Amino acid sequence: MNMSRKDRQFRPVAVPDVEVAGFWGKWQDAVCDSTAETLLDRCVEAGMLRAIDVEQPSPGVVIPILEWGGSTQMFWDSDLGKSIETIAYSLYRKPNARLEARADAIIDLYERLQDRDGYLNAWFQRVQPDRRWTNLRDHHELYCAGHLIEAAVAYYQATGKRKLLDIMCRYADYMIKVFGHGPDQIPGYDGHEEIELALVKLARVTGEKKYLDLSKFFVDERGAEPHFFTDEAKRDGRDPRNYIQKTYEYGQAHLPVREQTKVVGHAVRAMYLYSGMADIATEYKDDSLTGALEALWNDVVTKQMYITGGIGPAASNEGFTDYYDLPNDTAYAETCASVGLVFWANRMLGRGPDRRYADIMEQALYNGALPGLSIDGKTFFYDNPLESTGKHHRWKWHHCPCCPPNIARLVTSIGSYMYAAAEDEIAVHLYGESTLRAELAGGTKVTLKQDTNYPWDGAIGLTVTLAAPARFALSLRIPEWATGATLSVNGEMLSLAEIVSDGYARIEREWTDNDRVALFLPLALRPQYANPKVRQDAGRVALMRGPLVYCVEETDNGPDLNAIVVPKSLPQAQTEVLSELNGAVAIDLAAERDDTSSWGEALYRTIPADRSAAKVRLIPFHLWDNRAPGGMLVWLQAEK
Amino acid sequence: MNMSRKDRQFRPVAVPDVEVAGFWGKWQDAVCDSTAETLLDRCVEAGMLRAIDVEQPSPGVVIPILEWGGSTQMFWDSDLGKSIETIAYSLYRKPNARLEARADAIIDLYERLQDRDGYLNAWFQRVQPDRRWTNLRDHHELYCAGHLIEAAVAYYQATGKRKLLDIMCRYADYMIKVFGHGPDQIPGYDGHEEIELALVKLARVTGEKKYLDLSKFFVDERGAEPHFFTDEAKRDGRDPRNYIQKTYEYGQAHLPVREQTKVVGHAVRAMYLYSGMADIATEYKDDSLTGALEALWNDVVTKQMYITGGIGPAASNEGFTDYYDLPNDTAYAETCASVGLVFWANRMLGRGPDRRYADIMEQALYNGALPGLSIDGKTFFYDNPLESTGKHHRWKWHHCPCCPPNIARLVTSIGSYMYAAAEDEIAVHLYGESTLRAELAGGTKVTLKQDTNYPWDGAIGLTVTLAAPARFALSLRIPEWATGATLSVNGEMLSLAEIVSDGYARIEREWTDNDRVALFLPLALRPQYANPKVRQDAGRVALMRGPLVYCVEETDNGPDLNAIVVPKSLPQAQTEVLSELNGAVAIDLAAERDDTSSWGEALYRTIPADRSAAKVRLIPFHLWDNRAPGGMLVWLQAEK
Repeated sequence: MNMSRKDRQFRPVAVPDVEVAGFWGKWQDAVCDSTAETLLDRCVEAGMLRAIDVEQPSPGVVIPILEWGGSTQMFWDSDLGKSIETIAYSLYRKPNARLEARADAIIDLYERLQDRDGYLNAWFQRVQPDRRWTNLRDHHELYCAGHLIEAAVAYYQATGKRKLLDIMCRYADYMIKVFGHGPDQIPGYDGHEEIELALVKLARVTGEKKYLDLSKFFVDERGAEPHFFTDEAKRDGRDPRNYIQKTYEYGQAHLPVREQTKVVGHAVRAMYLYSGMADIATEYKDDSLTGALEALWNDVVTKQMYITGGIGPAASNEGFTDYYDLPNDTAYAETCASVGLVFWANRMLGRGPDRRYADIMEQALYNGALPGLSIDGKTFFYDNPLESTGKHHRWKWHHCPCCPPNIARLVTSIGSYMYAAAEDEIAVHLYGESTLRAELAGGTKVTLKQDTNYPWDGAIGLTVTLAAPARFALSLRIPEWATGATLSVNGEMLSLAEIVSDGYARIEREWTDNDRVALFLPLALRPQYANPKVRQDAGRVALMRGPLVYCVEETDNGPDLNAIVVPKSLPQAQTEVLSELNGAVAIDLAAERDDTSSWGEALYRTIPADRSAAKVRLIPFHLWDNRAPGGMLVWLQAEK
Repeated sequence: MNMSRKDRQFRPVAVPDVEVAGFWGKWQDAVCDSTAETLLDRCVEAGMLRAIDVEQPSPGVVIPILEWGGSTQMFWDSDLGKSIETIAYSLYRKPNARLEARADAIIDLYERLQDRDGYLNAWFQRVQPDRRWTNLRDHHELYCAGHLIEAAVAYYQATGKRKLLDIMCRYADYMIKVFGHGPDQIPGYDGHEEIELALVKLARVTGEKKYLDLSKFFVDERGAEPHFFTDEAKRDGRDPRNYIQKTYEYGQAHLPVREQTKVVGHAVRAMYLYSGMADIATEYKDDSLTGALEALWNDVVTKQMYITGGIGPAASNEGFTDYYDLPNDTAYAETCASVGLVFWANRMLGRGPDRRYADIMEQALYNGALPGLSIDGKTFFYDNPLESTGKHHRWKWHHCPCCPPNIARLVTSIGSYMYAAAEDEIAVHLYGESTLRAELAGGTKVTLKQDTNYPWDGAIGLTVTLAAPARFALSLRIPEWATGATLSVNGEMLSLAEIVSDGYARIEREWTDNDRVALFLPLALRPQYANPKVRQDAGRVALMRGPLVYCVEETDNGPDLNAIVVPKSLPQAQTEVLSELNGAVAIDLAAERDDTSSWGEALYRTIPADRSAAKVRLIPFHLWDNRAPGGMLVWLQAEK
């Protein structure tokens, strides 16, 4: 077998197939104990249940438009969808009858709301029924549908209840009638991608290829000429040029997707599209998408990604700007965008393990997405700057509440990102205390138990449990940063040089019950310098340990964090475990510091500040703003 | 005489008393030849003449509000005022019958517009006559009056024509009746300061103390409790809390002015207020203002000023934010605000020469205000970032066209900032090729001719022309940066240590005709480091030569300007005269540069960029964006 040929089909395991403990277990507990219920409470407070309840007065007539929150009302279904999805995953981990009853009640409301033809959308059934399918560019109809589909799949997998799944299948069946190139069909797609990846999930759980085909239709149509959004606007009596976002790049509809090479526009939309494209490439083994996917991947990771895996620096378009433009203090870097990058990276692994994708998946997960949630699961970052003067804090909620349920559903479904299975192979993409139950071709049931304190420690033990010996491959990611990694099976060392391909150590053998794999990934603190084209990081260094980006906080280091200077040769570092931060490993570094106290009154002078030795404490970036509020900084001055 | 006692009264000389050549002469020519007419053309295009012409239909009835440009219409009088003021100064330098006729015609329109009681305001006579004096906080009525008064004084001084001066005296006389604590009087002041300094000019040119008293009334009332803006809002049926700017700090009305110590709010408003306060302190020898003025001065120059003399980093309030918050790429640093800082600094010299003020006046003039004008006088910067990625360029006009006439009137009146006269003393605050005609106490007429290529060269020759020998003092500023300055009179060296006080070399002697003073100010290139509390400048250095801040431009240095590193010991520099930039002195520096071409594709890596020797060309910051468009940078990486 040529391992470098990317023609296999790895699909993420279902969430209930992985039991998570350790690092991610604590985060999942925070979501189960707090976030899941919080999400629902906030949706109710915002009036979302009233919005979908056909027993309530039609909100379009009775409820003043402002009470619906300006323009956010059109995508409320997506917030309910992501909340139900989060609840589903949380119920699997921690049964909660009350929460399940609340979710069931919402699903009942949707059941009653659904049109006889299958259509389902709170806004376009209750507020503007005459506007159904009139403005796909702006109205988020299929985006909402996608999130409800994801919720349906998750709820079915977690509870075995089919009601929402059936509702969404009916809706998807209706979509199959509505969209296409036939007479009276709409040859279009949604301005905000999401339906594409959702339909793939629906196809996988139902085994129905028709949903894959609809997803592929949306992918294939996007950006084709004559342009659907232009024709649609004209049909609807709108001037196509009168588009607030000015360019179809905003929704990645400026070119057919296979011709796209530059990551542009709204960051979340982009990630969701590329995720759907990667899914289609996997399911159809569609090599015609590979070129675009690889070009887009390289584009974002080599020119447009923060060291945190944050993407989309600008608030104005919630998205991408110029190459190498990565401002730290004003970084938008929406939590949802990094969640989306994790989605995409995960799906780029669909045709075979490759650490180019998995390393970034891990980087974005820990440092781009996870900061979006406080350790108690109760507050949320929407934007994720890499520098703060002390005024940036997590919100209880947001006027556009997309991020809280997005990070919550990612955290609670993390098991399905850790492992993927092909017919004869299990890939371990992410490390963390957990147990996988997988079934390979021929019905071989494998249990894989991962014992580790990762990411705080690099020692990882894997124990295979099998009813009978079986031949399959176990592929373990060796992160690019893990210089000096070692691997053994039942105490016998393996040569990584011989078995690593695409960054994965592939152990193909006949496994027997209780076989033990020991992987050691050295977590040395390492400096990270940015390409000198990144003007905002010039003369600066960031510090990483394993997959984690570190930062300094005012609460540990006092004010004026920009006065800290990291010496050229990385100085001696000591680690300390912080119990108040879920056992996180902090790093104490012997660095230097510009003296702000002896400077005097002048704002400018001809002699630089005195510099003296200083102890500096760094903590993992994803944990900042969980203690006393204050300044924070990732990119520190580097001695030149 | 105790020279350090600040109890004298220096007043700026009138603009026509100074003939300017050399550096400033070229800038004045650009305004005379282009800007002056451009200003008027743009005002006409915007509809301003129609707005003040009583023969035209009342704009409030006939002209849709949007045609008046949203909210900008209320202060159009100020734009016409500043334009007339610019024209006045330009006429003195270069007679221009056509331009003078156009100004006369506008003045005639104002004459016809003026109410019988003396009131004069295009908006509140023509559009909302029922709203006169109802909202001083927001409506700019006295602000507009102030600019028309400044125009009147300038036009009278330049042309000898009294019509506008008489109009504005009638208006000011009416104000004296309207404002005060008597019954039916308004105990208030304008939200946007300007009238205060304008009334002082009016008093000085007319000799009428009553105008000073009104100015002092406005200064004294500001911020007093019970708060005028609060009472005014209630009287007008508005909720005082419903104030878009949220705090009276926006217009420096949060405290009585004598209790203010922190520079806050809208930067231009702040500068105009402090200018008026300094004028009042000078005219009344009012020491009760000194404490606040000095505290405010120290506050802005030690905590809130860019190295360029730019102030007000934020666009949101067009003003001040937190101490030491000086972002370079997003700097608002409005041209008008630096013009205002020049105004204020100049007036802080009213009670005696002091280089604390004059050095900053010069710094803000060359580097904060002057960049607002292109060398051809045809385009304008509104905001003045210290870093650009190549997208920031001068405008032909601006929706709020305050900056173009502001920098134009400053340039054309620069002579009155160069020299000030007390009864027995002439102070030279700024150097530049020019000739001053002054009259001291007792009618002594002095002509002082300054020969120099300053700021390109530090050699300054001053020749005194006198009908008969006369005793007076000549005070010459020795800038703080001018280490190694030398001074001689008729070839005889003076000891600066003995005669310098408050940074001025004071030569008190009996002067005779043709006495010659030679001053040499070494213009060594010097590094400037920012207080390490300025996070945006950490690890960076700016370069100055004499009063000029230098920058690098992409057109000279290629892209990736942040890759440039200035060595610790300032390297050898060579100068070159650039004819395409009005004979500016460029500096070629042997520096270093991070290599962007050999870096490779990765966005981040563990090894910093290769660094190699590189020649770097710097040009004066005020001249950037006058050649091929591209990136620009002031604060360069500094070797640590």
